[in-house]
Amino acid sequence: MVNVAVVGGGYTKFGEHWSRSLRSLATEAGTLALQDAGIDGKDIEALYVGNMSAGRFIGQEHLGALAADQAGLLPIPATRCEAACASGALAFRKAYMAIKSGEYDIVLAAGSEKMTDVKGTDAVATLMGAGDQEWESAIGLTFTGLYALMARRHMAQFGTTREQLAMVSVNNHKNGVHNERAQFRYEITVEQVLKSALIADPLRLLDCSPITDGAAAVILVSDRIAGKFENPAWVLGGGHASDTVALHDRASLTEANATKIAAKKAYEQAGLSPGGIDVAEVHDCFSINEIMSIEDLGFCRKGDGGKFVEAGKIALNGEMPVNTTGGLKSIGHPIGATGIRQICDILSQLRGRSGRLQVSGANTGLACNIGGTGATSIVHILGKEEPKGR
Amino acid sequence: MVNVAVVGGGYTKFGEHWSRSLRSLATEAGTLALQDAGIDGKDIEALYVGNMSAGRFIGQEHLGALAADQAGLLPIPATRCEAACASGALAFRKAYMAIKSGEYDIVLAAGSEKMTDVKGTDAVATLMGAGDQEWESAIGLTFTGLYALMARRHMAQFGTTREQLAMVSVNNHKNGVHNERAQFRYEITVEQVLKSALIADPLRLLDCSPITDGAAAVILVSDRIAGKFENPAWVLGGGHASDTVALHDRASLTEANATKIAAKKAYEQAGLSPGGIDVAEVHDCFSINEIMSIEDLGFCRKGDGGKFVEAGKIALNGEMPVNTTGGLKSIGHPIGATGIRQICDILSQLRGRSGRLQVSGANTGLACNIGGTGATSIVHILGKEEPKGR
Repeated sequence: MVNVAVVGGGYTKFGEHWSRSLRSLATEAGTLALQDAGIDGKDIEALYVGNMSAGRFIGQEHLGALAADQAGLLPIPATRCEAACASGALAFRKAYMAIKSGEYDIVLAAGSEKMTDVKGTDAVATLMGAGDQEWESAIGLTFTGLYALMARRHMAQFGTTREQLAMVSVNNHKNGVHNERAQFRYEITVEQVLKSALIADPLRLLDCSPITDGAAAVILVSDRIAGKFENPAWVLGGGHASDTVALHDRASLTEANATKIAAKKAYEQAGLSPGGIDVAEVHDCFSINEIMSIEDLGFCRKGDGGKFVEAGKIALNGEMPVNTTGGLKSIGHPIGATGIRQICDILSQLRGRSGRLQVSGANTGLACNIGGTGATSIVHILGKEEPKGR
Repeated sequence: MVNVAVVGGGYTKFGEHWSRSLRSLATEAGTLALQDAGIDGKDIEALYVGNMSAGRFIGQEHLGALAADQAGLLPIPATRCEAACASGALAFRKAYMAIKSGEYDIVLAAGSEKMTDVKGTDAVATLMGAGDQEWESAIGLTFTGLYALMARRHMAQFGTTREQLAMVSVNNHKNGVHNERAQFRYEITVEQVLKSALIADPLRLLDCSPITDGAAAVILVSDRIAGKFENPAWVLGGGHASDTVALHDRASLTEANATKIAAKKAYEQAGLSPGGIDVAEVHDCFSINEIMSIEDLGFCRKGDGGKFVEAGKIALNGEMPVNTTGGLKSIGHPIGATGIRQICDILSQLRGRSGRLQVSGANTGLACNIGGTGATSIVHILGKEEPKGR
């Protein structure tokens, strides 16, 4: 079997890019990844692009070919992948499989979203395309509303407190201050979260990741050529699973079954347990989702996520550093880009290049990217050492 | 290397399904494919869904998970692929690569589109998402307009006649009469095409494929388990290439460079020349595109496509039968479904199950699915014999 390594990555400044187009952001990210890997566009054999809703946000589908075109990569095959907010990780996973298939040795996986070119209410309506149109969007539910239902249930079932939810955002903003590409680079306090505008009870403004423009890209290579690159990060394991799109169809509101299945597969493939992960990027689209993800990924027992956060265990110097570069909350959440941005940040940690945000001795890192309320979950585990005996 | 076979396929009636939803059509197609292969949903390990614009057509993204959910396939990994009108072939190609990667042995690839739930003008605007939003859609170009430019140039450069264009539609309708799932089951004459409403000079209504609802699905398996199935069709070769999304950026208006590159790769992999193909499904979104595709695939010399059609060579009993089941023109063109529908029809020909539309002695078949005006082209060659020595 072929082993796959990540040998370069980069992402644009995340934020409100009023003067820039999706194609401009995507091309910048691709260029950053190529420069980081020290290769030229002509070396790239295939392109995978994660994007959720450019058709509605900017009237543009066909993003694979468009990105290949704009980036000067023609005539390579280009594939757009979509799984709502997990579109980025999906593009990464398909790029990984394409190399595993033996078809290619060097593949570019990118993700992008331009969300600010529509009115805020239209952005919220567009995002509901990630939910069930017949059962959720049509009756006026929003994603904040859906995650509020999950938060309410988590609080009732496990005693998770409003303050513990706030501490997720506080942790992520604290890290994001040092990420120069983050949308919001300032610390916030628990009190500020609790006093911020109520969006969908119990979730408040500062529990929610923002509307963001941005793009991210990484270069994946086969083990046949990985030796040419410095400090590759190897894909040790991956998993991808699905669940009902409509929240009401789930067996539980407080766990993402897709994450549990995807994580189990990734851990098995990597030969690691949750305790073997040194740093993790998880999907804090809303504060409750970071708490649920920490549990579903096995970093603590189901229901203990709030206490885990409160005890400081997710802090940069904690026992399980999570969202060390700011998470979706502080960096921003340009939907299709997030899953690739997570891989970039894990790559940086494994290379020891994360500066003030560096987790010392990080040998393994995990990224979990979630679509909708958990209908798609994709987990990847990366490490500094090439897997043996595959 | 792993060889991959197609062991089942099916598609819904194509047409205007006013009383049915996308999820209903997709589930029907998946069920037909499972029944055809004689397997159960629980055997499926992964799902790939081709769809272009459900986000705009029906407010629903996240179609991979939704289809897995609706079809009772949870929690398998589900991937939505998009490359405009080539989304179906893209889903097939990614399913093929997933099996080649060694990750899965049985994969379902489906395609679907529900296009009639919006006004006709909104459908046309949505379809322009397949073009270049900044350079084409924004100035009012439509796809009929873009293909009209190509037709005009082809006529000027090669002497292709208005009548030859019409003969494409005549051929495809003649075959479609016998396809009970076709949207338009009646013969048309050259005179009728020439008298039909002018849409974008020189293209008339009967040169254009319609707005259609429909879904199609196929089952792909690895050679490890293909022996359990009757009459598998093996994937002998495939190719996928990209070109500029904006038509004005191309070196030529009269050839699709992406098709030429994709076909070259597919022929090389299959060890076949164009003369070795017994039956072909090509992308007649507009009559001119069938003529260009016939040339780009090497069935005749560049510029001779019109004469090739006029000489009856694409007829069911001709030397190179093309669109033997009706093509996009007669069967209809539910965007994301078309590429999978083409594979279903090639499968049926290779199995000798095409009834009155059967090409006698069909041992190899080719499908070419094109996105936009040729920014994406994907070619697959299938055959009755398993490839050796891969």
